[in-house]
This record gives sequence, structure tokens and C-alpha cells, in this order.
Amino acid sequence: MKPLVFQSDFGLVDGAVSAMYGVAYSVNPELRMHDLTHDITPYSIWEASYRLIQTISYWPDGTVFVSVVDPGVGSDRRSIVVKTKSGKYIVTPDNGTLTHVLRLDGIVEARQIDETVNRLPNSGESYTFYGRDVYAYTGARLASGVISFEEVGPEQDVHSLEMLPITEPTLDGAAVCGTIDVLDVRFGSLWTNIPCSLFLQTGAKFGDRLSITIQNDTRTVYRNIILFARSFADVYVGEALAYTNSLDCMAIAINQGSFARAYNIGTGNSWKIRIEPFKGF
Amino acid sequence: MKPLVFQSDFGLVDGAVSAMYGVAYSVNPELRMHDLTHDITPYSIWEASYRLIQTISYWPDGTVFVSVVDPGVGSDRRSIVVKTKSGKYIVTPDNGTLTHVLRLDGIVEARQIDETVNRLPNSGESYTFYGRDVYAYTGARLASGVISFEEVGPEQDVHSLEMLPITEPTLDGAAVCGTIDVLDVRFGSLWTNIPCSLFLQTGAKFGDRLSITIQNDTRTVYRNIILFARSFADVYVGEALAYTNSLDCMAIAINQGSFARAYNIGTGNSWKIRIEPFKGF
Amino acid sequence: MKPLVFQSDFGLVDGAVSAMYGVAYSVNPELRMHDLTHDITPYSIWEASYRLIQTISYWPDGTVFVSVVDPGVGSDRRSIVVKTKSGKYIVTPDNGTLTHVLRLDGIVEARQIDETVNRLPNSGESYTFYGRDVYAYTGARLASGVISFEEVGPEQDVHSLEMLPITEPTLDGAAVCGTIDVLDVRFGSLWTNIPCSLFLQTGAKFGDRLSITIQNDTRTVYRNIILFARSFADVYVGEALAYTNSLDCMAIAINQGSFARAYNIGTGNSWKIRIEPFKGF
Repeated sequence: MKPLVFQSDFGLVDGAVSAMYGVAYSVNPELRMHDLTHDITPYSIWEASYRLIQTISYWPDGTVFVSVVDPGVGSDRRSIVVKTKSGKYIVTPDNGTLTHVLRLDGIVEARQIDETVNRLPNSGESYTFYGRDVYAYTGARLASGVISFEEVGPEQDVHSLEMLPITEPTLDGAAVCGTIDVLDVRFGSLWTNIPCSLFLQTGAKFGDRLSITIQNDTRTVYRNIILFARSFADVYVGEALAYTNSLDCMAIAINQGSFARAYNIGTGNSWKIRIEPFKGF
Repeated sequence: MKPLVFQSDFGLVDGAVSAMYGVAYSVNPELRMHDLTHDITPYSIWEASYRLIQTISYWPDGTVFVSVVDPGVGSDRRSIVVKTKSGKYIVTPDNGTLTHVLRLDGIVEARQIDETVNRLPNSGESYTFYGRDVYAYTGARLASGVISFEEVGPEQDVHSLEMLPITEPTLDGAAVCGTIDVLDVRFGSLWTNIPCSLFLQTGAKFGDRLSITIQNDTRTVYRNIILFARSFADVYVGEALAYTNSLDCMAIAINQGSFARAYNIGTGNSWKIRIEPFKGF
Repeated sequence: MKPLVFQSDFGLVDGAVSAMYGVAYSVNPELRMHDLTHDITPYSIWEASYRLIQTISYWPDGTVFVSVVDPGVGSDRRSIVVKTKSGKYIVTPDNGTLTHVLRLDGIVEARQIDETVNRLPNSGESYTFYGRDVYAYTGARLASGVISFEEVGPEQDVHSLEMLPITEPTLDGAAVCGTIDVLDVRFGSLWTNIPCSLFLQTGAKFGDRLSITIQNDTRTVYRNIILFARSFADVYVGEALAYTNSLDCMAIAINQGSFARAYNIGTGNSWKIRIEPFKGF
């Protein structure tokens, strides 16, 4: 029996998530079920991909994740289950949800769900609720050992999996350049795609001042000098700082404030950030 | 040991739901507890009734649901437990919360909670928190087998249960007429009270174009021709469609948009919808 | 095996809470994990303290609570575990989160977390995520019996624990005076710090009319006569009432409305309330 962890953009205000739980519970009442989040921005495959990589490494080997952000439901996009290098399983539509997992963990095997077997019996009428009838059902069968990974369905070429476009961070002499991947929504921090290890190649160390430039396409939105802090406690309340987030990437925040709201910062490939150790006096 | 599933309008921002969990946990630490939703619009018995019928069929026989939307708490409304035709138990104030369950599943037996037995010991001072002291406590005792259904309290006439007024959908020659029951809040879809099976008696089939008219009382709010689609993938992003929802009723949506927000659509008996296969060219 | 209950200001929109669950699950897959709330107002230690006392008495002896509202993360504030008089354990930064628990339950022993032992292996790089790497990990080890309370770390003087300032309610002849501690957010009720038992020393009883005065510092915000009701059902829909809340303190509400929004009421020591039985005719 492996844990079963759900993610979706369904929200928790209606019965959709509970219906998925009920289906899984009916497969095996001993299943341990948990949530990653159900508040993914509707249809945001990027966010779903990001939240998976933020979380899966903290769960034990064999954990089965069911991720349902599926704007193409009913199209001919495949329904798949993959096994990651670190030994987790992810049940998802093949629509880019695995972009970060492929890059940062790795995928060793992919299988297409055979819906003639792995679909809730007598659910044929509803074409819109794959999350419940196929993904939750298949995830529960896999987590509880009713089926093996091989019994999910036919193997697929890992290289055929759908991927979202990614902009790579770059080291440019004394500076690193990257994009703002996602917000830490509740605290308004910016999470960049710049690994701390890459940034440290500029020679910067904790306690240094950093020159930060944020651009939306060609428009400069923010330019200032802030501290590279070990933690929020190193700066005043209300002061901005750069720090290493829980994914070991560079992040920008205001201590007990919201950087994103303060400067109207968004996310995506058009939001660029440049970080450079400040050589001023 | 049966699963125990909670629904309420308490929200999750304070400790009210966790107090109910703690009470249930104290009855039996082996209980499996889950949530339907706690984000029912405050005091909306209609929504509570709808979310139950949306969900309970996916849970196994014997599951105990505790639903606490209770604007009349402290009045002489009864506290009851019913057994549905499909073998589920629902613990709830008798205030209309069972309207959809009675019609679409069926209730085979109802019992009034005997509070001299089924009330958290030493909870007599608080008149306002029935959810915790009576409903969660009784539900946990029933789900864990501490009491049988008969030991809930005296049997009640099923016909005496409080019901909300319902408007029936009608087939009127080539068209069906109904009401907008509820929103799929997160995606802005309209869920009508028109069963797909009733609509199909008009002779419509997937791929047909449908003439849709939505009225709020006498005011026409929307009138247009849209596709009767098997799924969202059959229409363009931003295009409206009619489809069959997870309750096998007719629903209206905009692919990756919000129909409800686009046209300011609400819910209830004053929101009427007419669907007719379009005979134009 | 004891239940493990989480509270934080992380929200549920990203993967932070699920990462804590995964860490705890990895300590012992048999652990029963539940949430108090994750919607504490960001950085509000006061609210975290209040929600704990609102909830912990309903959970059984030995329950381990992990509360992470930690504006001083990375500072030299201690990380502690306390045992309450009623036999619960609370894992938390020592920043005032235990203010209400100390006063209303009692703390019998406090220990500082020894992070050389009780910290997720290989988590040394991240300075910002104590919730996951230290608090969830330590809570899971304690709840599952991997460590005893003594093995948390060195004992601390209970009198050295950080406390938030508290204003005491007072009985002033025929009236009681207190502060508005917190809102019942979803229903807009005001929860005061005035125990019902103190108020009853004025000689008031259910059914009496009460004169209510609410001041923000020196400005009078509300002054009116309302009913001291046994429950909401004793007043009309839309009528204000005073009642006893689930903490056995005095509370003010509008039946099926929001008192807080109606009169723009806030919380904290500057929000004062005076309640006096009305002697008019």
C-alpha cells in the first residue's frame, strides 16, 4: 500500500475532489490519501508542473501522485502514468505537466493508461470527468497494488512526452539572468529559475549586496540594491532581500510584505530577472 | 469501521472543522475521516443538498456523511440521521438538506438523534455548536460501530422530512425548459436541472447546434446558438458549448473561460433556461 | 502512534503543506495526519495562539500539534516542544504562539529542539523552511514514538517562554469590559475575551436585553441594545444578538449577517467592548 496524493485545479468548493476520494476509497478502503493542492490556477499546466517538483521529493519511494490539470480533456491527448528516477509514480494527462519533473528528477518509464481496463466501471456516459473516472481510479489501483505499473497499459517512448518551453538561466560574467517562474502566492515572494549554485559562481556570498533588475519584456519594472540574506531575520521588517528558496533557487521577497504586489510582478518567460553582486561602495 | 465524510459552511480558516475532527477522533482513533467541502455558501441549504447528491454515489455503502449547514441552530428543527436507498447514512439538521438525496437517491429510513445519549459529554453549555457536539459525535459513533442506526434515536416518518421547493424540468415539443441549479464555481459553468436523457428526447445528438435562451425572471440574459459537444476539446478556446456534466445533466460553459462571469448568470428558481435543437441552416 | 495536527500561515495554494506531510509520512507511514488550519493571517502569532486554544481540547491526550507561524525564522528564537497540562504536545517557534495555551490550559514542561538530532537529514542548505525540516520532522518523530518527549532536547524554564501582551477582562459593577480577540471570519461574529461566567456575575440571564458599546481606542463604533440569546434562533434574521461561543466566552453577531462587516469592526487590544444588562423599560 503506497500513499496516494492528489493535485488539481478543481478547488475545494464543490464535490469534485471528494468524488475522486470516494472512487479511490472504493478501490481500497485502506488507502492513505492526501492533497498536494487543488488550487492550481485553472488550466495552468505550468503551475501544476512546478508544484509537483516542489513537493514530490519529500514523499517516500512508490508514492502515487494524481495530477489533473487538463484543458484538453476529451481531445486525443494521452492519459499516462510515469515512473520517475526517484521512484515516484505520476498519473496525468500528457500535456506538459511533467516538464519540471523530467528535467529535475528524471522519468525512467512511461505508460499510456489502457481505459478498457483502467476506467471506473459504468462511467462511460461522462466525457468530461476523466479526473474521477480514469485518473483517480487508476492511481488508486496502482497505489493499492490492484495493478502493477506494467498493467497500466502499453509502454510509451519517454521522448514523446509533451513538454512546455523552458528558458534556461544563464551566467553572464559577473551576473546571472533568468525568469520568474512562479510566486510564493501567500507571501508574495518571487521564485526564479536560477539555481543558487549557478548564482554562487559569480563569487557572491551571504551578506553581500546584490543589484537586481526585473524586466517585463523590455520594460524595467524594478531596479535596486538588496541584501543576499541567509534568512528573513537578517533584514528589517519591510526590507527587500534575496535568499535561497526551498528548491535551492534564488528568490526575492520583502520581509513580512509582498514583493509581487508592491511592484506588480507577474510570472512566465516574459518576466526576466538579472542578479549581480554590487561592486559599489 | 466506515468512512466519515464532513460537509459544512464553516470554512477552513479557523478551528471549527478541526474541533469536529478531534471529537470524532476521540470516539475512535481508527476512523477514516475526509471532507466533502467546508466552503458551502454560508446558510445555503440548497447548495448543501446539491453537493451531497453530486458526491455520495462515489463513496462505498455504509459511508457516513455529516452535513452541517444549519441556519436554524437552536430552533426546534430536528437533528436526524437518514439511510439512503443506496446504503449511505447522512447526519444533518432536518432543514431541507436532504431535498436532492430524497429525489435522486431515495431515503429508506429516518431517525431523530436522541441527544440524551448522542451528545458529547459535558458539552451542555454551548447552544451554538451542534456541528461538533451532536453531529460529528453521532456520525463518529455510527461510523465506528459504537451505536447501530437504530440506536441513533426514534424512527421518524420519511414523509415528514423538510424539503426545499423544486422546479421540475419540462419537455415542450422540440425544447426542454429548466432552471440553473448551481455553478461549477471554479470554472464558471452553469449546471441545469435538465437530465441529459430528457433533453435527448428532443432528438438532439452530439455535434448538433442548440439554441439557448437564459432568462432571469422575465428578462432575457443570453440567447445564442452553441454546439452540443461531447467535451470541451470539440470547441475552440473561448467558445461556448453545451455538454453533459458529471451528474448527467445539461450544462453550459465557455472553454477555458467563465460563462457565469461573462453574462452575470446566477442560480435558483428565477434563473430559467430553454434548450432547443437549432433547425436553421 | 498519536495523531499529528498541523497549523500554519502557508495557505494551501502551493506545495508547502504537502511537503510537510511527505516528510512526516516518511518518518512513519502509519501516522494519522490532520489539519487545524493553514489560513492563519500571514505572520499573525496572535491568531495562531487563539486557534490552538480553540481546538486542542477536542483532541485526545498525546496529540501532537505542529504550529508554524514564524515571522522570526532564521533569527535566534528557539524552536520548542511543550507538554500542556491536558496532555497535548505543541511543536512551535517560541514567539508567543503559546500565549493562550499557557493561560487557559497550562504548560507543564518545555524542551528546546536539538537540531543536531531532530532535523531532516540533508536539509542543511535551506535556511527558510524550518516548518518542513525541523517542525514537521520533529512532530512526526514524537507522534510516532521514534523519540520520547525527553529526546526532543534540553528542558527549558516554562517561565522563559515568549508571551504576547494580554488585556484582562474586568467586572465593573454592573458591566463587564473586555477586548475583541478574534473574528469568526466566515460568519462575521465578534469573539471577545470575556468569559461567560464573568459576565453572569452582573446578574444577567438569557432573554435579557444588553447595552453594548464598542470602541476603537477612544472612538465609539457601536452602541445599541441587543438580546442575550441562547442561540441564533431566538432572534429574527438580520437581528443582532449576544451569545456564548464555543469557547464559553461572550460573542456578538447578526443572525445570518456579518456584524464585523456591518460596522467595520477589527480585532486586537485597541478594540474594546463593554456589556451591561439594560435597565430601561
